[in-house]
Amino acid sequence: MDCDVQKTAVEARIAGLVRSAMGPRDEDESPSAACETVLGEVTGQALTSSEGGKRLRALLALDTFDAVRPASPDGDADAKRMRDAMLDLACAIEVFQTAALVHDDIIDESDLRRGKPSAHRALAEATRSTSIGNGLGIMLGDLLATASVDIANTAARVLHPHDAIVAAFLNMHREVEIGQVLDLAVELTPLDDPHALAEASLNVFRWKTASYTTIAPIELALLAAGTDPRQARGRALSVGRPLGLAFQLADDLLDVTGSSARTGKPVGGDIREGKRTVLLADALESADGSARRELADMFEAPERSDEQVARAIELFASTGAIDRSRDRIARLWRQSREAIGAWDLDDGARAAMTAACARFVPMA
Amino acid sequence: MDCDVQKTAVEARIAGLVRSAMGPRDEDESPSAACETVLGEVTGQALTSSEGGKRLRALLALDTFDAVRPASPDGDADAKRMRDAMLDLACAIEVFQTAALVHDDIIDESDLRRGKPSAHRALAEATRSTSIGNGLGIMLGDLLATASVDIANTAARVLHPHDAIVAAFLNMHREVEIGQVLDLAVELTPLDDPHALAEASLNVFRWKTASYTTIAPIELALLAAGTDPRQARGRALSVGRPLGLAFQLADDLLDVTGSSARTGKPVGGDIREGKRTVLLADALESADGSARRELADMFEAPERSDEQVARAIELFASTGAIDRSRDRIARLWRQSREAIGAWDLDDGARAAMTAACARFVPMA
Repeated sequence: MDCDVQKTAVEARIAGLVRSAMGPRDEDESPSAACETVLGEVTGQALTSSEGGKRLRALLALDTFDAVRPASPDGDADAKRMRDAMLDLACAIEVFQTAALVHDDIIDESDLRRGKPSAHRALAEATRSTSIGNGLGIMLGDLLATASVDIANTAARVLHPHDAIVAAFLNMHREVEIGQVLDLAVELTPLDDPHALAEASLNVFRWKTASYTTIAPIELALLAAGTDPRQARGRALSVGRPLGLAFQLADDLLDVTGSSARTGKPVGGDIREGKRTVLLADALESADGSARRELADMFEAPERSDEQVARAIELFASTGAIDRSRDRIARLWRQSREAIGAWDLDDGARAAMTAACARFVPMA
Repeated sequence: MDCDVQKTAVEARIAGLVRSAMGPRDEDESPSAACETVLGEVTGQALTSSEGGKRLRALLALDTFDAVRPASPDGDADAKRMRDAMLDLACAIEVFQTAALVHDDIIDESDLRRGKPSAHRALAEATRSTSIGNGLGIMLGDLLATASVDIANTAARVLHPHDAIVAAFLNMHREVEIGQVLDLAVELTPLDDPHALAEASLNVFRWKTASYTTIAPIELALLAAGTDPRQARGRALSVGRPLGLAFQLADDLLDVTGSSARTGKPVGGDIREGKRTVLLADALESADGSARRELADMFEAPERSDEQVARAIELFASTGAIDRSRDRIARLWRQSREAIGAWDLDDGARAAMTAACARFVPMA
């Protein structure tokens, strides 16, 4: 199916699903009038926070399902019902992403998300209280996480095997949550062992990004299309793990090479925040003594100036770290394609699957 | 089954379930050495935070299941398998409670929980960073919430109907999360309308407490014992709603009448924190002009002294608010018992069910 058409369908369906998962249910006891306004702010923010993602994860899940599901005659009602349920399951992944980002922004104290106030900041504004805004933000993340599993559980009634799909969905939650713990742990690691830092960062990418960006969308789609759970997991890992790492490396690279207009973020934002990336690790590893000291000092300081950001980018280039990231991306993307090649797909399905994955590495 | 034996079984099983839901799985990619220590702190804290609850919710679920499930011959393997799965489902409710308390303590900035440092404080201590401790605390709550659904989903494979049990479990999550939002909203309500305040507080009790304390344990046990979902919901609400409200009213009452030795908390702790309770609303409603102003001023101030706490307790007694809470508890407990009476149970089962519920209102 055409990518833009799919994306529009996903966008519309997410709004409907979030509205019904978060909104009042028939049998609900009404909240007291005194509290209704605040609850309204929270459910309104759930919709606002759900808007405007790239929907790459939902599209990967749908394209994988379409590539591998058995052919069925046009107008087959069962096939249509399953495709609709797969759309909901794909949307559930996006709803989970929103939940994770709401908590992420609280943890990172980020004021902005996709160019708008982050959820907890908007709620602080609405209630005129930073601490109540943070509290409501934590709960909004919890509510969206619950909604995501609820949407997946309902979709899994139609798709099979029900319990394996719900279990895989929950494993995705677990992996991302562990990934966030590991990400916080990386912030505590010293900068004197660049090799260990690169390993640790790539490991965080596996847990925090690849898990729900590429592995789970493929795994859930394969399960829904009837693949045996063990095989679905193996295939999802073989394609999704390298693809997810390549995606995050490309994202980090874009931060230092991309134009602000294209990414919507200022160039060097990660450096300004002092984020410990693979780029930084590679630069530290290849830099000579004085440049290495300069970089380490810069990243151990509480803040970095515009000049320092520019200087760090210069060092990322001159030490070969940028080229090395490009090489890493190319190698990982090759691994991912080879893994697709090992599936038993006809040429059309293999091309569709490869195209679906290629969206994650636009620069490769 | 004997209550202490059950409680010991629950306590032991929770530790095992949390360890396996949160610990590494066979196929997991190991976290890098640099991050392993922090992850270890988080999983260790998951176990510490899981210890030492009263397990009232798990016991209610088990007792309800035992009261209503069809009789089976001794040594029936299927019945044994289902009872074991019911134990896990009951533990899942307790794991969810721990998850909710971890987030609660962050939101309320509580340093202590059950006499030990609260989870985010312990993690801040371990990482020597308040902000990383808060971040890890948010993730620990998320991980435990995910673990709770995972445990419920696995238990529901054996119990039936699978999807209805998972859906009811997720609805419990949703209700508590909404309850927490409403609880934050109550903190923003003015004190000039005591009737509205009492309504709002009771409404918070329904969402934040009764939901997972009494309604869900009964509903999940009835579903697992084969009751039709609509009937299970209706029965759980009819018994669990008044019982849960009575339980929270009794808990609030204990805060002003109980001895510190019995509750493990200082007398008047809720007053010191300025918590807007039904007791406060009732006192405001019955107090004469000057006493009402005195109470309102006290609770609108940022802090309350020992003398003010003692004075508030005096006013709660002299305005009749304490007696009114006792009346409310007695009336709600009567409603709950009448609702049990309307179930089609034999005398033994009805007595068992009534005894299970009576644990929530020790003073009635």
